[in-house]
Amino acid sequence: MIKIGASILSADFGHLKEEIKRAEEAGVDFFHVDMMDGHFVPNISMGIGIAKHVKKLTDLPVDVHLMVENVDLFINEFEEMDYITFHIEAVRFPFRIINKIKNIGAKPIVALNPATPLDEIEYILDEVYAVLVMTVEPGFSGQKFIPVMTKKIRKLKSMIVENGYDTKIFVDGGINVETAPMAVKAGADVLIAASAIFGKEDVKTAVKNLRDSALKALNIKNPE
Amino acid sequence: MIKIGASILSADFGHLKEEIKRAEEAGVDFFHVDMMDGHFVPNISMGIGIAKHVKKLTDLPVDVHLMVENVDLFINEFEEMDYITFHIEAVRFPFRIINKIKNIGAKPIVALNPATPLDEIEYILDEVYAVLVMTVEPGFSGQKFIPVMTKKIRKLKSMIVENGYDTKIFVDGGINVETAPMAVKAGADVLIAASAIFGKEDVKTAVKNLRDSALKALNIKNPE
Amino acid sequence: MIKIGASILSADFGHLKEEIKRAEEAGVDFFHVDMMDGHFVPNISMGIGIAKHVKKLTDLPVDVHLMVENVDLFINEFEEMDYITFHIEAVRFPFRIINKIKNIGAKPIVALNPATPLDEIEYILDEVYAVLVMTVEPGFSGQKFIPVMTKKIRKLKSMIVENGYDTKIFVDGGINVETAPMAVKAGADVLIAASAIFGKEDVKTAVKNLRDSALKALNIKNPE
Amino acid sequence: MIKIGASILSADFGHLKEEIKRAEEAGVDFFHVDMMDGHFVPNISMGIGIAKHVKKLTDLPVDVHLMVENVDLFINEFEEMDYITFHIEAVRFPFRIINKIKNIGAKPIVALNPATPLDEIEYILDEVYAVLVMTVEPGFSGQKFIPVMTKKIRKLKSMIVENGYDTKIFVDGGINVETAPMAVKAGADVLIAASAIFGKEDVKTAVKNLRDSALKALNIKNPE
Amino acid sequence: MIKIGASILSADFGHLKEEIKRAEEAGVDFFHVDMMDGHFVPNISMGIGIAKHVKKLTDLPVDVHLMVENVDLFINEFEEMDYITFHIEAVRFPFRIINKIKNIGAKPIVALNPATPLDEIEYILDEVYAVLVMTVEPGFSGQKFIPVMTKKIRKLKSMIVENGYDTKIFVDGGINVETAPMAVKAGADVLIAASAIFGKEDVKTAVKNLRDSALKALNIKNPE
Amino acid sequence: MIKIGASILSADFGHLKEEIKRAEEAGVDFFHVDMMDGHFVPNISMGIGIAKHVKKLTDLPVDVHLMVENVDLFINEFEEMDYITFHIEAVRFPFRIINKIKNIGAKPIVALNPATPLDEIEYILDEVYAVLVMTVEPGFSGQKFIPVMTKKIRKLKSMIVENGYDTKIFVDGGINVETAPMAVKAGADVLIAASAIFGKEDVKTAVKNLRDSALKALNIKNPE
Repeated sequence: MIKIGASILSADFGHLKEEIKRAEEAGVDFFHVDMMDGHFVPNISMGIGIAKHVKKLTDLPVDVHLMVENVDLFINEFEEMDYITFHIEAVRFPFRIINKIKNIGAKPIVALNPATPLDEIEYILDEVYAVLVMTVEPGFSGQKFIPVMTKKIRKLKSMIVENGYDTKIFVDGGINVETAPMAVKAGADVLIAASAIFGKEDVKTAVKNLRDSALKALNIKNPE
Repeated sequence: MIKIGASILSADFGHLKEEIKRAEEAGVDFFHVDMMDGHFVPNISMGIGIAKHVKKLTDLPVDVHLMVENVDLFINEFEEMDYITFHIEAVRFPFRIINKIKNIGAKPIVALNPATPLDEIEYILDEVYAVLVMTVEPGFSGQKFIPVMTKKIRKLKSMIVENGYDTKIFVDGGINVETAPMAVKAGADVLIAASAIFGKEDVKTAVKNLRDSALKALNIKNPE
Repeated sequence: MIKIGASILSADFGHLKEEIKRAEEAGVDFFHVDMMDGHFVPNISMGIGIAKHVKKLTDLPVDVHLMVENVDLFINEFEEMDYITFHIEAVRFPFRIINKIKNIGAKPIVALNPATPLDEIEYILDEVYAVLVMTVEPGFSGQKFIPVMTKKIRKLKSMIVENGYDTKIFVDGGINVETAPMAVKAGADVLIAASAIFGKEDVKTAVKNLRDSALKALNIKNPE
Repeated sequence: MIKIGASILSADFGHLKEEIKRAEEAGVDFFHVDMMDGHFVPNISMGIGIAKHVKKLTDLPVDVHLMVENVDLFINEFEEMDYITFHIEAVRFPFRIINKIKNIGAKPIVALNPATPLDEIEYILDEVYAVLVMTVEPGFSGQKFIPVMTKKIRKLKSMIVENGYDTKIFVDGGINVETAPMAVKAGADVLIAASAIFGKEDVKTAVKNLRDSALKALNIKNPE
Repeated sequence: MIKIGASILSADFGHLKEEIKRAEEAGVDFFHVDMMDGHFVPNISMGIGIAKHVKKLTDLPVDVHLMVENVDLFINEFEEMDYITFHIEAVRFPFRIINKIKNIGAKPIVALNPATPLDEIEYILDEVYAVLVMTVEPGFSGQKFIPVMTKKIRKLKSMIVENGYDTKIFVDGGINVETAPMAVKAGADVLIAASAIFGKEDVKTAVKNLRDSALKALNIKNPE
Repeated sequence: MIKIGASILSADFGHLKEEIKRAEEAGVDFFHVDMMDGHFVPNISMGIGIAKHVKKLTDLPVDVHLMVENVDLFINEFEEMDYITFHIEAVRFPFRIINKIKNIGAKPIVALNPATPLDEIEYILDEVYAVLVMTVEPGFSGQKFIPVMTKKIRKLKSMIVENGYDTKIFVDGGINVETAPMAVKAGADVLIAASAIFGKEDVKTAVKNLRDSALKALNIKNPE
């Protein structure tokens, strides 16, 4: 089953509560909070306080995506979160980070920038809940899906299958009704979208279309 | 005339629009947006996107407080802002930063951490619109005003007066009805408060009390 | 056809104009400017201003080799350049850098230090004009070609061929009449040389010998 | 023949001379000094002066393990040492570091953190005396061996064999009578242990047990 | 009363327990542990583990001198210590560091490099137990006292007296029977010495001579 | 006697030898080489090799101005130089740097950015040959003299006089016939100019005019 995460990066911050309600009603499976530090990526978006607000405003799972260099500084702030996503490029000791995330009761996800080779995560692949394949270079919403990333997703899928692991594949960046089918056919299990959800007038239809495009690509009928 | 800036750091981010309206009606003079990068300070609060949302939600002036190391990365994003506050500890070439801020039409303000000596700003004192004296170490709301900062404010006031400059003094950190009188008696022109405004049930009364406490300390009758 | 780039790192800087003329007359195909920052490599050579001087002194193409950490700081300075070479070890977001270089109308080349594995460039290999395989560790002229680099060149060649890409292979470091044949047999398309050109009394013969050595290795007759 | 290095990280620093004697008598093959800088790893252990003291207190070889970022700063301090181990993650130019170590007459060893892929050392594998596979994330003694590291050791062994190199494999981290057999069966030539030696009442028996466990795994009779 | 701290930087690390006993019997008032990170200073000496060993080997107070950049990383490791000395050049938020040290029950001391101006500590002068005036640039034992530091000590003494504070003055670097009189006459309360104590055959006489030289300079009779 | 240094930053790099000859004939007193690293300042100009070329092309003294962060990396490369200028903002241990410069036989000069307070150099003022007061923020030629710097020069002059030191004052940045008089009246001994010399058609007249403007301001007749 394909799952959909709504990244609040494209939400209207004047009415965050309503935005979250609308996405919930549209049937998204979880919320994704992009936390940027202006160092790992050339932008600052939102931080600890807002992530905690989001968690209070919904009963759905929340995934905090740490696009930051000082990963270690933040994990213990996020005990209430469901997933904590860190970048392999930002950490020297991922086993420690993964254990720290598990210790607070969250599920660890490792993210890779588009150019980062998959062998960077070979030895931790069985330790994480999921791998987040960035399909754009992180930092901004509204960028275009990088086509060669489908090759990377396929390669990752086959690493997981060969080893008999049950690690999930998340994708994030430029996901919409055109690119979601490519991603899921390549092996993605979970789609994260920002502007394709919150950027739309009708959030409900937007989420439905996104899900349908993915299911159709897999020849699965939407059970909804 | 004492002015009051409302720092949205303590606002309810589920209903930012309403929070801003409430503060406007309570008579605050401008909004203050604390942008943190997890490097200059050990916290990330909010960034470019949210600052721009705030600006759209109000007609009052907006002051962006860059508690970040890469000051240069952000200035050109903020053409619509009224004040841009940077930290002297974060820049090697403040004259360039000041000119860059002036060039986009905003007013430059230089901030100092509590322990930073005033001579760090001696040669730029006439170039900035104001000096922001941090009265707590930045990074979190709800901290206690550091009493020795009144000595620093007095010293700064006298540097300004001696040189015949018209630079303003802003204070930020632990400002409430007990500390505002100390700050204004020492020479502060503008008070920035977060939890003393948004942390209160009745924002209107909170702002009024804050202003009254300051004016009373100066033996000025509130004209409102 | 093998091409030869003359790195001005070994030129006589008292008479740069004459040096460039001499190399042009000797038949080099382009000039290569090694820009070092004392951080990415433990040396500073020359910078923006001198690169621009070189461009004005010749009609041949100019290749700026950024041996620097702050790649992003310099690209927009080099609109007039023909190739801009950046190091994969210095950038987190190579897709952005490549697009930025293309946007100013130059051709992007990605360089790898000798120890850097080729999979670091797997996903960008089709986006760049060429890959520069460093055959010495960068920072100084006059170093010795590292023999195991021929294995790396062969591996790269086969990555390019297998994928059907048309990416070129440049080599730089210790290139002379002994090592040029090894490099081209392994798959190099373009040879960059500094001391093997400018370090010689007779630049014309030096360039001819270098080219002949390469062509002979490929069993090609020099058409000149 | 399996060799055993005693890491003094777990020694009693009140009586270092006696501790070293005891380990010598127990038959360890060399001493291993873990030098940490609080930057490459989140701990500081001991430095140049203590390493030199150790060297004076024994006739056995001494291996200095540089868990530091500024590798270059320290090599020339260690002319008397037998092995100098540096981390591939800490250096941009490993060929230079290797040559510098050889130039002072020591044997270079390259270390890899658990998550670091083996292709990071592909081109230097024939230049080093040995590869140190960290089987825990470095920084502290007393951590648990990471099981997937046996896969990495096997892969490394096969890289060495395929190329016909004679590079040795050292392992360090959580080595004891349970894990030593796993490490040597996977291909390790040298075992480094700290708490499994100095943490024991009877150092002699501890070393014997460790060696026996390894030899037994290889079906070799201990010639002692 | 002048107090004397023995810096173990010059001790014989083969027999640390005995060295400490000898210094205790010689009448030193406390031990000083120089912890270096190879970043704040160009040397690594010893770290957390050895500092803790020292504390266990003596009943005298122990002062840990953090010549490190990541001050924050280490404080919570040192609950058992008596004084924790940090460098003002290494911290952005000294009020936080001071509170953290007080919270674990230790006394905070702020150190200044020789070239650092005293106004860097103006606002924290009443918050610390003592100021450590470095009289050499830190990193190595056996360096020569910088004469102009007596001027700095006098200036600091007068800052303390004028404000009515009871902050102590420690000095460290090149302290011996020639320089101790200069330091105490300028206002130093506590002398730290390494080679002038542990570098001597007869530690008892060395400590006595050092103390006598200081007391004589102040025209005080040694009560011992 | 006012001295004039010609900064080759504005020279024509196609004909450096001729440019240097021309400046020599125009009567400049020494050459000034601006070495930038793209980190301390946002530009790279030229480095070690070109500085050495300049030294070979002239018998006049050469002053290397290190606008770099890694000061320590370069000093030993410059044994043949006459003055080595480092920035106080770039070093933590200026006494060591000064000694290192003296040890290779050069004269140490300390430079200050416009905003840097003079107390940063209080304790080294008697150790350096001169202080270079930057009258623009370094990084580019052709910038405008910052007027408040005359106040800084006066203050520095009075620090030198009060202490009875014989430290010289150099100024650099926007120096021309309008600003030279301001600088020398405030206390400058040596003027460094780039575009006011090499940017002019007639270098001889340009140097004469600059010198005359300065001497006239001091009511000294030009003895030439």
